[in-house]
Amino acid sequence: MKKYTEMNRAELKAERERVEAIYKALQDQKLSLNMARGKPGKEQLDLVSDILDVLKSDSDFICDGIDVRNYGNLEGLPSCQKLFAEVLGVKPENIFVGGAASLQLMYDTISKAYTHGRVNSEKPWAKLDCVKWLCPSPGYDRHFGVSESFGMTMIPVPMTAEGPDMNVVEELVKDPDVRGMWCVPKYSNPDGIIYSEETVRRIASLKPAAKDFLLMWDNAYCIHEFFGDFVPFPDILSECAKYGNEDMVFEFASTSKITFPGAGISVFACSDNNMRYMKKLLDKQIISYDKVNQLRHVRYLKDKAGLLALMKRHAGVLGPKFRCVLDALEKEIAPLGIAEWQRPNGGYFVSVNTMPGIASATWKLCLDAGLTMTNAGATFPYGKDPKDSNLRVAPSLPPISQLEKAMEIFCVSLRLAALNKLLAE
Amino acid sequence: MKKYTEMNRAELKAERERVEAIYKALQDQKLSLNMARGKPGKEQLDLVSDILDVLKSDSDFICDGIDVRNYGNLEGLPSCQKLFAEVLGVKPENIFVGGAASLQLMYDTISKAYTHGRVNSEKPWAKLDCVKWLCPSPGYDRHFGVSESFGMTMIPVPMTAEGPDMNVVEELVKDPDVRGMWCVPKYSNPDGIIYSEETVRRIASLKPAAKDFLLMWDNAYCIHEFFGDFVPFPDILSECAKYGNEDMVFEFASTSKITFPGAGISVFACSDNNMRYMKKLLDKQIISYDKVNQLRHVRYLKDKAGLLALMKRHAGVLGPKFRCVLDALEKEIAPLGIAEWQRPNGGYFVSVNTMPGIASATWKLCLDAGLTMTNAGATFPYGKDPKDSNLRVAPSLPPISQLEKAMEIFCVSLRLAALNKLLAE
Repeated sequence: MKKYTEMNRAELKAERERVEAIYKALQDQKLSLNMARGKPGKEQLDLVSDILDVLKSDSDFICDGIDVRNYGNLEGLPSCQKLFAEVLGVKPENIFVGGAASLQLMYDTISKAYTHGRVNSEKPWAKLDCVKWLCPSPGYDRHFGVSESFGMTMIPVPMTAEGPDMNVVEELVKDPDVRGMWCVPKYSNPDGIIYSEETVRRIASLKPAAKDFLLMWDNAYCIHEFFGDFVPFPDILSECAKYGNEDMVFEFASTSKITFPGAGISVFACSDNNMRYMKKLLDKQIISYDKVNQLRHVRYLKDKAGLLALMKRHAGVLGPKFRCVLDALEKEIAPLGIAEWQRPNGGYFVSVNTMPGIASATWKLCLDAGLTMTNAGATFPYGKDPKDSNLRVAPSLPPISQLEKAMEIFCVSLRLAALNKLLAE
Repeated sequence: MKKYTEMNRAELKAERERVEAIYKALQDQKLSLNMARGKPGKEQLDLVSDILDVLKSDSDFICDGIDVRNYGNLEGLPSCQKLFAEVLGVKPENIFVGGAASLQLMYDTISKAYTHGRVNSEKPWAKLDCVKWLCPSPGYDRHFGVSESFGMTMIPVPMTAEGPDMNVVEELVKDPDVRGMWCVPKYSNPDGIIYSEETVRRIASLKPAAKDFLLMWDNAYCIHEFFGDFVPFPDILSECAKYGNEDMVFEFASTSKITFPGAGISVFACSDNNMRYMKKLLDKQIISYDKVNQLRHVRYLKDKAGLLALMKRHAGVLGPKFRCVLDALEKEIAPLGIAEWQRPNGGYFVSVNTMPGIASATWKLCLDAGLTMTNAGATFPYGKDPKDSNLRVAPSLPPISQLEKAMEIFCVSLRLAALNKLLAE
């Protein structure tokens, strides 16, 4: 197949006629498919539902000498702190265990910076005229949603194959109004790339003008390989500590994609100093998060080895889905020169970068053929992709049979959008 | 027995010698007892632990057409909204279901007022020079803790046998800096009194100068009778609506004292307008609270009748504990004229008002004899009881055998403190 960019108008027109016919045939099937969110499918939920069987008799509720059913233990069950400490490579006392959503812990960390200031802030951020925030893009729409909700000025930072462009970041943090940055360091959302050691080192050794600069390190996919074995990754807390930046970072993780998306547990990890400060504030907000669910997770997952074994079983479900997406792109799109993408080994997304100016049109064509995709632009601050070129594919929810059909729609929509664009020029 | 206040010095001295001997004998027993917090005892936890048996097979996870294990449904499971709507007497769509702690929902409601403003605020409260808050006292220390954490200026309002002194409240809300008020309307913490209909009406019809005045209606003990049958109570949302104040109030409730204190569910109820506004903000903070636990509660509690039946079983445990406290006070303290107290039929506390100036001394004597009580002063803003006279007795945690001993210590400490005070005058 000839590249679209190398076709003349007559060839493009003929091709559009062909592709349009395929698109219309798909449309006629009146499908209703969804690749919009990183939502695990039913198979994955069923895989872990025996987690509800681990607590049975009254004596099961005692752990670490604590009756988990009652009030107390703000920072979480010690055994649960230990479990996540092993996974993230930090000390148990630097782990705080939350509820079902790490998003809530992230939001609250930022909210408390606004209402009370950070441990080393001169004043609460609500009293500042301007809070600027670095947003490696494409990135996670819910991160940007938090920043936007607090009225931050979001500054996009280009992503490279090694993580955020650190030359840009190092320059931007010289501005004292720049107070923080979002990072998804392993299998970044949506690109699925792993920050290189050099990138991690340069982030950990940043010297921001703002003394209370907040590095939001969302390690959402820390053990989420779907191809191949677990990939070790540096512990950001000790990396930051090497450069005297131990109070700069909060790390987040959760079991949303390990046990139940809607009923898992989440954690943050931070320095001793931050932990003392946060516990003082959190003590006014909550007596403790759900310790029965924490114990359930401890008994079910056991330790890092237990977790990694479970992740292999998730990979057994997810691997074929990602293979399906990547194969379709390879076969249908690669020869045409109209888009590029990473080939991730973990995470929940495939990020497709189209030729400029056709992401929205592709999204709309998908929708009109019954396929809901993440909104074009959603992966950029304020929902605005300056090149209109990024689309996030989330293959986890549909069963394979639907996914094949969804990728047919996606590829043909992308081809049609490209042809329309090239013919309009 | 003669009243202490009617004894002459010689009689007081003789009495002190007798009481001191009893106190020392108790001290020699080297006990370790706790009546500090409204923490349910093990019997109550065991009573409800079969709640963990209601979700068994994969098909159990579907409710209202929703797979509760997965992401989604910010406002909570419809069946769970319905359950609490029935209890609070509001519409299901005016219920938002949260996590294990209603304290967290309360904190977040106030936090969002600071960061984003309320639905009808001119600006976020963080931008105001001063936020004043009405604190009916004695009251709940954790409420005051939230206010203090946000730097509010707390204004104590005297409690009467019918609720907060409304003449005082109506006068204070003329100050435009007064932005809200804490209320525990049924079995108030710690007095255990039920606000009268007239008090509720006067609260609902308040005309505060601050248009975004926030009534925090913590209905923590809405179905928590331990003596006698369920006592119906007006729905504050419709009461407020009668006077055009529907956006003034947020009501809170939880199952912390129905199922598990550390692993229950909580709700807030508010007007359509507030709900729309809060959902827009909450959508940035969390995808949903734990819906598996919500479903577990729906299946276990079923409906209001099911809830009330369960509360009768809790009353079977709590009733004798409150009887023990009240009997001891009646027998040991009532004849002496050194303290007064309410005789509540529900809630979690007995509030003892001693003669002025001896609450702290009583607390210290209790501690030195091995009995931990809620700090004297804790029931007042900033932990400062102006008369040093209120002590909160929380009888739920210790088994009856310990409780009897604890009340021995409490009564003898109170007598000794009174004698010391009278002899020092």
